[in-house]
Amino acid sequence: MSAVPSHDWIACDWGTSNLRVWAMSGGTPVAEAGSDRGMGSLAPDEFPAALDELLSPWGTTAPVIACGMVGARQGWTEAPYVAVPCPPLAPTLTAAPGPRRVLLIPGISQSSPPDVMRGEETQVAGFLALNPGWDGVLCLPGTHTKWVHLSAGEIVSFRTAMTGELFALLSRASVLRHAMAETGASDAFDAAVSETLSRPERLASELFSIRAGHLLEGRSDGRDRLSGLLIGAELAAMRPYWLGQAVAVVGAGAPGRAYVRALTTVCAQVTEARAEAVTLAGLTAAWRTWKMTQDA
Amino acid sequence: MSAVPSHDWIACDWGTSNLRVWAMSGGTPVAEAGSDRGMGSLAPDEFPAALDELLSPWGTTAPVIACGMVGARQGWTEAPYVAVPCPPLAPTLTAAPGPRRVLLIPGISQSSPPDVMRGEETQVAGFLALNPGWDGVLCLPGTHTKWVHLSAGEIVSFRTAMTGELFALLSRASVLRHAMAETGASDAFDAAVSETLSRPERLASELFSIRAGHLLEGRSDGRDRLSGLLIGAELAAMRPYWLGQAVAVVGAGAPGRAYVRALTTVCAQVTEARAEAVTLAGLTAAWRTWKMTQDA
Repeated sequence: MSAVPSHDWIACDWGTSNLRVWAMSGGTPVAEAGSDRGMGSLAPDEFPAALDELLSPWGTTAPVIACGMVGARQGWTEAPYVAVPCPPLAPTLTAAPGPRRVLLIPGISQSSPPDVMRGEETQVAGFLALNPGWDGVLCLPGTHTKWVHLSAGEIVSFRTAMTGELFALLSRASVLRHAMAETGASDAFDAAVSETLSRPERLASELFSIRAGHLLEGRSDGRDRLSGLLIGAELAAMRPYWLGQAVAVVGAGAPGRAYVRALTTVCAQVTEARAEAVTLAGLTAAWRTWKMTQDA
Repeated sequence: MSAVPSHDWIACDWGTSNLRVWAMSGGTPVAEAGSDRGMGSLAPDEFPAALDELLSPWGTTAPVIACGMVGARQGWTEAPYVAVPCPPLAPTLTAAPGPRRVLLIPGISQSSPPDVMRGEETQVAGFLALNPGWDGVLCLPGTHTKWVHLSAGEIVSFRTAMTGELFALLSRASVLRHAMAETGASDAFDAAVSETLSRPERLASELFSIRAGHLLEGRSDGRDRLSGLLIGAELAAMRPYWLGQAVAVVGAGAPGRAYVRALTTVCAQVTEARAEAVTLAGLTAAWRTWKMTQDA
């Protein structure tokens, strides 16, 4: 007897910092839970207990389909990368050791230039499930923002920018932390995006100007300026991805909005998709494929 | 009676992280001491004791000439900035409160683009004292590397890059920390410098390649590549400073050598100066000027 509504399977998004699960009836979530027991804080033998902590109260034995860093070499067990060009979801999932049936979605790699993703491939699959036949570029903002070129249902190429991690380090741990008041100065953001997009070499010298402008002029737009300088530099790096392309931003909250705002100044067509809906659609696609192989 | 050889004054370099003092006979150091009680770890009323800790064993009451963050707003007492264009050493020093005679050298500011320095102005003065009449550009590598344009004994303009702080944050606190073995791969350094110097927009996407190259190919040149990518991007930003100029690098250890190596690929003339010698020469110049006003 289940403590949650009737469900077929468990969707699981297990990243570096967080673990989230949903009880799923087909493609519809009927219950959800989460914890901060992400891959980064767990030894390989601690994964089963971290998952049980969330699933035992539900009394469920349904199969779990999981994406994210749980399948990394330092995770529960490695789900080896699949190389581009390839569909976002590999046909084979990796079973994690333990009494519960847990299937891990593999990450995707690229040899030249070298790049990797884990978790975003599931969002790409979900976006395609929600937008069949869509060709173009996905931008997935995060700690490590991914730019993914999609064509005919396959990932052709992709590229990662560490913009989110740079913003976190610079705004919390560098000398710029003293100039990081929250003001929502969108003019300062726009000007900074424009500056490094057109002159990416300025990033190296403009960062310290945030500190100096705060000291000398009492400027309070440092946070917006830092965000704009970093995103503008990223757009300059990713020009081959967005130039003349339809771009969809898969985002949540302020970072997603910042990318949409920056992209609308240079792209003819920018659409937004909700990160959680896209993740669940991708996990559902993986579950349906896996279920077919079980039923066959 | 002094526990150190006869001396006239105390030279003091008091930065964010460290405090160093030298007993000076004219321009010659006859004793030295240091501690990790930098400005960053001290409240304003803790500065006298931090200095006494080093000077009391010397039994000295000689005047102290100090440069660095000790004169910042958050330091012992503020030595207000002097604005460019100006000679590196202002004619007036700021007396710090307390029984001991301590004179602080003011920092230098620039309004457009906004920038500040504290401590480096003393090294600039020292370099000029050791190289009278020198015109050109000084590069002072550090947590916040300074580029200083000198003409006719004055600082005309300057610019700061946070390259040292970015390297420290990325190599110790980001996902790249897993790929930071020490190998001294100078080919990888050179290639990375060349890459971001010619295509600075690549910095945003190439940083994560260090992680991916380590994961996929077992590459072990991540530290050299990170250093090269950041310094190449800095050189791209500072092109107006070094292009067609005589450049002198005031450095110590590995960072100084890295800048010299990178600059020799693009500059006709690169010279090196030892940071400590230059700092002492600058403090000595400040002491001589101050002493003249006392004797007058």
